[in-house]
Amino acid sequence: MKIQPVIMSGGSGTRLWPMSRASRPKQFLKLVTDKTMFQETALRVSPALDPSFLNPVVIAGGKHGALITEQLNEIDIVPADIILEPCARNTAAVAAVAAAWVARGKEDALVLLMPADHHIADAEKFRKAVASGANAAKEGYIVTFGIKPDHPHTGYGYIEAGDKLFDAVYSVGAFKEKPDAATAQQYLDSGGYFWNAGIFLFKASAMLDELAKHAPDIKSNATEALQKSVMSGAALRLDETVFSKCPSNSIDYAVMENTSKAAIVAPVDVGWTDIGSWSEVSSQEGSENIAAIDCNNNVIRSDGPFIAATGVKDLIIIATGDAVLVARRDDAQQVRAIVEELKSRGREDLL
Amino acid sequence: MKIQPVIMSGGSGTRLWPMSRASRPKQFLKLVTDKTMFQETALRVSPALDPSFLNPVVIAGGKHGALITEQLNEIDIVPADIILEPCARNTAAVAAVAAAWVARGKEDALVLLMPADHHIADAEKFRKAVASGANAAKEGYIVTFGIKPDHPHTGYGYIEAGDKLFDAVYSVGAFKEKPDAATAQQYLDSGGYFWNAGIFLFKASAMLDELAKHAPDIKSNATEALQKSVMSGAALRLDETVFSKCPSNSIDYAVMENTSKAAIVAPVDVGWTDIGSWSEVSSQEGSENIAAIDCNNNVIRSDGPFIAATGVKDLIIIATGDAVLVARRDDAQQVRAIVEELKSRGREDLL
Repeated sequence: MKIQPVIMSGGSGTRLWPMSRASRPKQFLKLVTDKTMFQETALRVSPALDPSFLNPVVIAGGKHGALITEQLNEIDIVPADIILEPCARNTAAVAAVAAAWVARGKEDALVLLMPADHHIADAEKFRKAVASGANAAKEGYIVTFGIKPDHPHTGYGYIEAGDKLFDAVYSVGAFKEKPDAATAQQYLDSGGYFWNAGIFLFKASAMLDELAKHAPDIKSNATEALQKSVMSGAALRLDETVFSKCPSNSIDYAVMENTSKAAIVAPVDVGWTDIGSWSEVSSQEGSENIAAIDCNNNVIRSDGPFIAATGVKDLIIIATGDAVLVARRDDAQQVRAIVEELKSRGREDLL
Repeated sequence: MKIQPVIMSGGSGTRLWPMSRASRPKQFLKLVTDKTMFQETALRVSPALDPSFLNPVVIAGGKHGALITEQLNEIDIVPADIILEPCARNTAAVAAVAAAWVARGKEDALVLLMPADHHIADAEKFRKAVASGANAAKEGYIVTFGIKPDHPHTGYGYIEAGDKLFDAVYSVGAFKEKPDAATAQQYLDSGGYFWNAGIFLFKASAMLDELAKHAPDIKSNATEALQKSVMSGAALRLDETVFSKCPSNSIDYAVMENTSKAAIVAPVDVGWTDIGSWSEVSSQEGSENIAAIDCNNNVIRSDGPFIAATGVKDLIIIATGDAVLVARRDDAQQVRAIVEELKSRGREDLL
């Protein structure tokens, strides 16, 4: 059975400003390894490593076609297609486009839908989890991946595992919103709750059927936007008029919480991190371009200027050639407020 | 009676890194007003404002001759001379050079010796204080200026005023080192202690006599270094071999604490600040190049990059094109440790 990786690369990554910019969002930056998160995502499911994987499809923001081509060239991966979104419509629309694309000519392949901005330390274990999930996906389940929590994180959604369906695959008991600290601790202690990694494995027909039932506007508009797409350079550009009619919703809300076909591979223990904010990114202290004296628990990174810090703790300090961010590490989400402020000042040069 | 201003501009200002650099120390930066502190010092005693002031003499670091010429040109002030120190030998040697220079041809003028890196808000009141001091200086006193404290600052030296000598001029009771907080509060409460502004007014012959008594090596070497000085561009360069033999000492230690001729003008209430560290510099919050959200009591300044801060307090955040500093405001002296670290890393490009 073939697996068609589809990389969702449409995020804007504003919480990783000032390095993440509209022209080069976080997934295209080298924040964790010496490759970008987008490149790591593509390499994780490279056909060279496992011939059951087909060349990837990339679904991305409308301005990033050339960047994607460049970054895939650097790692010698040939995309099966690059599909550009004329506007952002959240993940359910992306799932619909992915399913419609695969249904158009590769209907036997399972779709492996992955965000481009997650870090997974152990790619081999990840591929094993995908193989486990494939047993359920080929039977019509829409399979999600449940990461084994190692601490009571309050910033992730959780999934409760239900009855066993296949080896390492369970039905979904319930989707849980981001919990408070006490609830997160209960989830951790119980052992039956897993972080929702936002990665999905499914037959194209299964996803299209469930979208037709639970989110018909998304299904019809996304499918039509793909049919009416036009070539733009090396990429396919979705029809803007039609695609913009898709309601903006997540796969979880639009499909997973409503379908009876939800399943979960669990526990998945692959060193997974959603690189959602600077608090999840490692500090560059110790590099030749940073001096930190009497400092503790900061995230300090620069892509150019020297950064000197003294006597400070629990901070995020990020410098680029044209902007500097200083924020509290326990309040990394506040970077969004900065980006809003820049918008209100008309500082597109910094966004 | 004529007054010969001599501006001491030899400081390196390392505690104001990263804006203050070896090639352009803090006195040559616009940190307080729209002119540099050096320019403000020259303008404060401009002959155009008060014809009793002669054109200034500047005594500065060996590399800053061109910068001084440029900065004086900008404010239309013609220097009487620019004297370059081949090495730093502290203020007693500078006072000796100043006195020797004036004694050489303007022995009737009083010498007004001023650091280039102080801010004085009310220049007119300052000139009035100088006029008060002149009555004592022409009688052979070495006059210092006692700033009226408005808070119990622990970072300044204090001078206790003694008996009244002239109108607004007193003998010096005692020089006091930087006090602890309780002592500083006692000084403030007593009303008889004043901040030592490091500004001096004296007859050249009086200073040379007192140096001969209390610091003969400084007097003889500084005087000889001036005699053997050579023209270098528009400036006079002190003889390095001789000048380097001057012991490095301050005017206070070498002369003022030993002489019976010390006097103090007090209280001087002119809005005086020694711009010694970032904690004394005003924040640029509110400028178009800075966004501070939920922030409190920071000093934030940039000469180029945008700075965005959120949720932080009591910090110093300074950005230049090639370096960023983040430090605790209550520990601004620690910037010196950063500069030492850069030296040890051989990063002359940042110093």
